[in-house]
Amino acid sequence: MSEYTATVTVRLKAGVHDPEAETTRRALERLGFDLSALRAADQFELDLDAESAESARERATEMTERLLANPTIHDHDIEVEPR
Amino acid sequence: MSEYTATVTVRLKAGVHDPEAETTRRALERLGFDLSALRAADQFELDLDAESAESARERATEMTERLLANPTIHDHDIEVEPR
Repeated sequence: MSEYTATVTVRLKAGVHDPEAETTRRALERLGFDLSALRAADQFELDLDAESAESARERATEMTERLLANPTIHDHDIEVEPR
Repeated sequence: MSEYTATVTVRLKAGVHDPEAETTRRALERLGFDLSALRAADQFELDLDAESAESARERATEMTERLLANPTIHDHDIEVEPR
């Protein structure tokens, strides 16, 4: 068994309204910053023990699909690195 | 002027209690997943126009320090890429 860290990034799909990102963007503009767009995402770093990087990725994918992301509104990507 | 995307990741500093991450971890364990640790972070993707990648990074750093992160409890890192 080796130790891996799986980094899961969960984003709203394009077109899904994100009031938190909109509020953050307006607050930045009120501070005088100029930006074309702002997207917010949640990131989870999962430390886990697995036989291989592939096995770590499979488990992280299962955790993402079962709990961390909602496939109706979210896209996700997963990166696995040895710890 | 060129278009850049600055990706800002804001994490709680080590030792700062994160009840949301703790709840997520316990929910995963209740589903039968075994993990050593779970850390949560916020990620912001900022699309902006700037003269250079360095200038885009400076503005993203200023936005992070003024609004996106609280230096008392957060660490952050910033990656800048042409869009």
